[in-house]
Amino acid sequence: MSTETQELTRTDWEQKLIAIRRQLHQYPEVAYEEFETTRSIREWLTEAGIRLIELPLATGVVAEIGGKNAGPVIALRADIDALPIQEETGLPYASTIVGNMHACGHDFHTAVILGAAFLLKQQEEKLPGTVRLLFQPAEEKGTGAALLMEKGALDGVTAIFGLHNKPDLEVGTVGIKPGALMASVDGFDIEVEGLGTHAAIPHAGIDPIVAASQIVTALQSIVSRNVSPLENAVVSVTTIHGGTTWNVIPDKVALGGTVRTFREEVRQKIPGRIRAIIEGVAAAYGAKVSLRWFKGPPSVQNDGPLTKLAAETAEKLGLQVVTPEPSAAGEDFAYYQQKIPGVFVFVGTSGTNEWHHPGFTVDERAIAISANYFAELAWRALKGG
Amino acid sequence: MSTETQELTRTDWEQKLIAIRRQLHQYPEVAYEEFETTRSIREWLTEAGIRLIELPLATGVVAEIGGKNAGPVIALRADIDALPIQEETGLPYASTIVGNMHACGHDFHTAVILGAAFLLKQQEEKLPGTVRLLFQPAEEKGTGAALLMEKGALDGVTAIFGLHNKPDLEVGTVGIKPGALMASVDGFDIEVEGLGTHAAIPHAGIDPIVAASQIVTALQSIVSRNVSPLENAVVSVTTIHGGTTWNVIPDKVALGGTVRTFREEVRQKIPGRIRAIIEGVAAAYGAKVSLRWFKGPPSVQNDGPLTKLAAETAEKLGLQVVTPEPSAAGEDFAYYQQKIPGVFVFVGTSGTNEWHHPGFTVDERAIAISANYFAELAWRALKGG
Amino acid sequence: MSTETQELTRTDWEQKLIAIRRQLHQYPEVAYEEFETTRSIREWLTEAGIRLIELPLATGVVAEIGGKNAGPVIALRADIDALPIQEETGLPYASTIVGNMHACGHDFHTAVILGAAFLLKQQEEKLPGTVRLLFQPAEEKGTGAALLMEKGALDGVTAIFGLHNKPDLEVGTVGIKPGALMASVDGFDIEVEGLGTHAAIPHAGIDPIVAASQIVTALQSIVSRNVSPLENAVVSVTTIHGGTTWNVIPDKVALGGTVRTFREEVRQKIPGRIRAIIEGVAAAYGAKVSLRWFKGPPSVQNDGPLTKLAAETAEKLGLQVVTPEPSAAGEDFAYYQQKIPGVFVFVGTSGTNEWHHPGFTVDERAIAISANYFAELAWRALKGG
Amino acid sequence: MSTETQELTRTDWEQKLIAIRRQLHQYPEVAYEEFETTRSIREWLTEAGIRLIELPLATGVVAEIGGKNAGPVIALRADIDALPIQEETGLPYASTIVGNMHACGHDFHTAVILGAAFLLKQQEEKLPGTVRLLFQPAEEKGTGAALLMEKGALDGVTAIFGLHNKPDLEVGTVGIKPGALMASVDGFDIEVEGLGTHAAIPHAGIDPIVAASQIVTALQSIVSRNVSPLENAVVSVTTIHGGTTWNVIPDKVALGGTVRTFREEVRQKIPGRIRAIIEGVAAAYGAKVSLRWFKGPPSVQNDGPLTKLAAETAEKLGLQVVTPEPSAAGEDFAYYQQKIPGVFVFVGTSGTNEWHHPGFTVDERAIAISANYFAELAWRALKGG
Repeated sequence: MSTETQELTRTDWEQKLIAIRRQLHQYPEVAYEEFETTRSIREWLTEAGIRLIELPLATGVVAEIGGKNAGPVIALRADIDALPIQEETGLPYASTIVGNMHACGHDFHTAVILGAAFLLKQQEEKLPGTVRLLFQPAEEKGTGAALLMEKGALDGVTAIFGLHNKPDLEVGTVGIKPGALMASVDGFDIEVEGLGTHAAIPHAGIDPIVAASQIVTALQSIVSRNVSPLENAVVSVTTIHGGTTWNVIPDKVALGGTVRTFREEVRQKIPGRIRAIIEGVAAAYGAKVSLRWFKGPPSVQNDGPLTKLAAETAEKLGLQVVTPEPSAAGEDFAYYQQKIPGVFVFVGTSGTNEWHHPGFTVDERAIAISANYFAELAWRALKGG
Repeated sequence: MSTETQELTRTDWEQKLIAIRRQLHQYPEVAYEEFETTRSIREWLTEAGIRLIELPLATGVVAEIGGKNAGPVIALRADIDALPIQEETGLPYASTIVGNMHACGHDFHTAVILGAAFLLKQQEEKLPGTVRLLFQPAEEKGTGAALLMEKGALDGVTAIFGLHNKPDLEVGTVGIKPGALMASVDGFDIEVEGLGTHAAIPHAGIDPIVAASQIVTALQSIVSRNVSPLENAVVSVTTIHGGTTWNVIPDKVALGGTVRTFREEVRQKIPGRIRAIIEGVAAAYGAKVSLRWFKGPPSVQNDGPLTKLAAETAEKLGLQVVTPEPSAAGEDFAYYQQKIPGVFVFVGTSGTNEWHHPGFTVDERAIAISANYFAELAWRALKGG
Repeated sequence: MSTETQELTRTDWEQKLIAIRRQLHQYPEVAYEEFETTRSIREWLTEAGIRLIELPLATGVVAEIGGKNAGPVIALRADIDALPIQEETGLPYASTIVGNMHACGHDFHTAVILGAAFLLKQQEEKLPGTVRLLFQPAEEKGTGAALLMEKGALDGVTAIFGLHNKPDLEVGTVGIKPGALMASVDGFDIEVEGLGTHAAIPHAGIDPIVAASQIVTALQSIVSRNVSPLENAVVSVTTIHGGTTWNVIPDKVALGGTVRTFREEVRQKIPGRIRAIIEGVAAAYGAKVSLRWFKGPPSVQNDGPLTKLAAETAEKLGLQVVTPEPSAAGEDFAYYQQKIPGVFVFVGTSGTNEWHHPGFTVDERAIAISANYFAELAWRALKGG
Repeated sequence: MSTETQELTRTDWEQKLIAIRRQLHQYPEVAYEEFETTRSIREWLTEAGIRLIELPLATGVVAEIGGKNAGPVIALRADIDALPIQEETGLPYASTIVGNMHACGHDFHTAVILGAAFLLKQQEEKLPGTVRLLFQPAEEKGTGAALLMEKGALDGVTAIFGLHNKPDLEVGTVGIKPGALMASVDGFDIEVEGLGTHAAIPHAGIDPIVAASQIVTALQSIVSRNVSPLENAVVSVTTIHGGTTWNVIPDKVALGGTVRTFREEVRQKIPGRIRAIIEGVAAAYGAKVSLRWFKGPPSVQNDGPLTKLAAETAEKLGLQVVTPEPSAAGEDFAYYQQKIPGVFVFVGTSGTNEWHHPGFTVDERAIAISANYFAELAWRALKGG
């Protein structure tokens, strides 16, 4: 970003972004219920003279800056939803909605992208292209990104940037890496159906507990035998439930779990292996089995050249750039990256607790720093690096 | 039984026993709540002039006939408790207590032993010894027999006879076999304690679902490898529960189940094998494990000479004697047999449904037949066969 | 047997049987190679005036006594083959054929049935029917009985008796029980075919060691879950072989083992369960599997009435009758029992070692006692008990 | 490398290196038997005027160039041993030693480092430090590097460079990546000791096949549960052997296998998990177990700054630089890297078959290219990047 962005009094601007973030923080709204949040974002954008793009969305906001000069369209994305968690930070501006909390810092993300928008708006005349702003609902459900794309929010965009706060990185540090950054997140339910009988006459039934146990054991072989040792994956069975009393072998056992991967080829391979294992083992015992698959977001895959741009921009601004460990958590930003190149950046917030913790906080000094960084990054992306 | 027992008008006596049984059937009381049942039995015995033995029991009745002539003391035992099952027979004299039912026919057993008592009372002067009558509470809990013995109900007794109705045998048939007739019945709870963690980072925890599954699998080897192929045993895991949500590996998995055997040496061996397996497998995974053992009745083991006497007596009375399959169900009559020789006899009742079924019935013609049989058996046992 | 059988001087007769047995013992011939044995038996029978039944057999002898009086045909069976075991008894009449030994006592069985034949021949005029003598080859292969039946040796026979020495019973004791006495004996080979690969890249192959291990584990569930706790069965995997070097996952693992049961219904059920388990588990891992089944003899099942006759006969002769434990070993006498009622009797031989041991012996006093017993038993069987 | 290195006629020099490589190829000698190879290398170095460093080594050569100007000591390493594989290339200069072959291309490595040495020797007067040449024996045994270090070959050296040919990379391409490049390679033998018994009476023994199968199954959980999804590891059981005949449960089962990792922390964790699993599962079955561990080389870990230097050098020379997939194979070059920073480079050889294949070849054009690259790399490393 050129020095002209400094015209706005730094302190005023910072204070405004902090105020925005605190207002969002006090009114946290969960996925698809971000009505007040949506209203506020629209107001702040309108006050700043930024034009709204009206799409048929109940919640979420799309807006645009620039377009006066020839150039591409790039997008900055913030997610805006909160979590059904009771806040326990004791902050003066803590959540006023019982049971809801911005425990993943999406209030911070929203304030950062608004800040970047305000900076870019000041330079709109010179902007070498268009910056589209996506304030996306329902990231926590993993479905908001797909909704925005379905409504056309990504049409014409050639690159996208997003962020997540990172409590374990210091303010002033950014975590940037090419390739896999966050995991694909799928879920499954398995039902093993045997044939109940009295515990004393097992031969009169089909024991689903024995079959389910063998299934859990066999599922371990997917990661140990079917995934390349140079790849990474998780297959976790997290729930197992069957039987109600000590002297009856039950009819059924229910299993549930999740699969995480960092590459689409690996992700594609696993459901077939799970199906083969559960069907094979069930057949071995004469049991039946059914599988329900809950497909979540793919893995976040950062584009090589854009990642380089993001790192160089950070260094230019004096930020410390580190290569973060990938996270086995998921992020629906990945859906955008299936369409167009993008970079998802971890920004340091010197937090006191991890994501989704009732005591989760961010250091607000990170807001202005990050807003400035994303404004600069957008500008440089429009200029072509 | 000598012909003098025919003095009582057969029809009157049968009608009385049927009436007794129906009265009991209408007021079924579960284990340790057999207050009305106890009161009724005491009344019927007192009316018949049979002397009650007063023991400090809240429920259950002990009485005695004879003792005028030198001779041993032998016992006839009936169990008197009902089950927490809602009756669905549609009989005119069906249970009047909602949720309770004599679904295992203990009303029948009580009427039979009362009938035998009435017959023996008529011959009391000539009785070559003493017949003690045990109307035992709480057989369904598996603890009533031990309670009676603790209170002294078996003191001085040298042989004991008991019965169970058998729906699949015709009225007029008895099932008598030496040795093992019903299984020992033990129960267990196992808790596998790992270390919970997010499903995406399994290495940060200890997965109790994987450990519990391997335990279930390994427990199969007790019957397949550690019990002689010439012996019989069941080890069933009937409940498995762990985990509450799809993306968290839980701390614990709870297992429950039961063990059945037909010989004490086999029974004694199994808990040690279970303990070795759960501790070994848990250690393999770095998990902890705890075992709670619920020791139930031993297996019913019929005494050789008394069994021969029981069969000969039945044949003499024109009953058909068959060798029944042992049952993997349990019966606390077995506790008496650990102290003194005894025989447990299956008597045919041409039933319409199996034990514990809401539609369970007995053919009441079996009452008088069985009462006569047990009176005769008691007499012959006193005479020494 | 009536007293007329005493005409033969007891001592001479015993000495002759002992001499016969020792001669057989010195020339042990394995299955289907019993040429000298066959020649000797024919000679002894011919010398005694017993008529041979000529059947197209390379080895083995069939003969008959009686038929002068109306009556049924019953059979006495001895097996005549030896084992490929090097004798280590140090007896003066030890095997003279290197590597062969009568280590299962078939020499004893042959001498016993010859002795019975000599006794019966003396009473031939009065014999109330016909006694057929079967000197069967190849019991150790489990196929000699079927061969004899195929050639007609059992035609017209209505009951059959056979014996096996029992080292742990004293001379003068016989073990007689109705129903199952010896196990059915089947064998199996399983080949698990995966896809070999370098040990460092397991995902490039299909690991047959993991699949085979899961198969072994799952096979335990047949006895623990699919066989009634009131039945008896063994499924043992006895060999497992796969892999040749530390850094290559092999293509295949070979498993072998055996199945023992004591009832045909149980026996019939097991191959299907094995097939379902190996095919299901193999499919779970993407492996292939093949099963070869080696069907051996069914279980020896003694006929109720004939068993009673055998026990009464033994008691009449002053022998001690015990109820033996069934043996999980097999015996092709069972094939005869599939056609006609029969009894297989254990006769006490006060042996020093178990069957198939290089130091196996029998106490020769048992020969005459057993010969007398089988002559008496045959006579009584002809008379109809 | 400065232009002066061009003084040697390119064609002559290339031809010489090709001749050297072919001579080595014709006389392949396996680990610790590289006597002729050692003699030849000493001759070639001596002819070129390069001074030998005499260390007490039966095979292998150490030499040095430079030292006239102040500067550090860096090392270039080639491995010189061949494999016990029968060559099937059909080349005119194929192996003349039956059963031995340079099937991993160490002849190529040796020629490359000799070529680099000849180039550096020409510039010795100007060399800004010292280049030590390590012609290491017994890489295939994984022990040659440690031997050289023990004898002092690495004393005073501050950085080391090595290479491996890569058949799937084109000539002119180099594979260079920081961090983990090749796996640590450890091996293990496990013996599971049960108690043999007849297959029909499993309860009389302890079945080691069931225990070993459960161990194989449980070992899968190390990679699936105990290794971070962000790390990489292989635990392969490659051999399983137990049992000799169909009707006997054996005493023992032997397992063997290998472990591969790419980070020392992961590597350190695994033996403890294997031990816990085998001891826990064995205890579950009452079996005993023993573990033998064969510790091989650690993983090749390329130093960050030196890797950057290696890549920049390659680019300067017009070579194509790619980021290779790590290889799960091992390399004892890793031992040097435990002491001092180093880089191991994959050089493209357009090969027709993979390492250790009897048809393995290299395209000899890669020799001169690689020799020039390592000379230039050594020079730049001495200059400090």
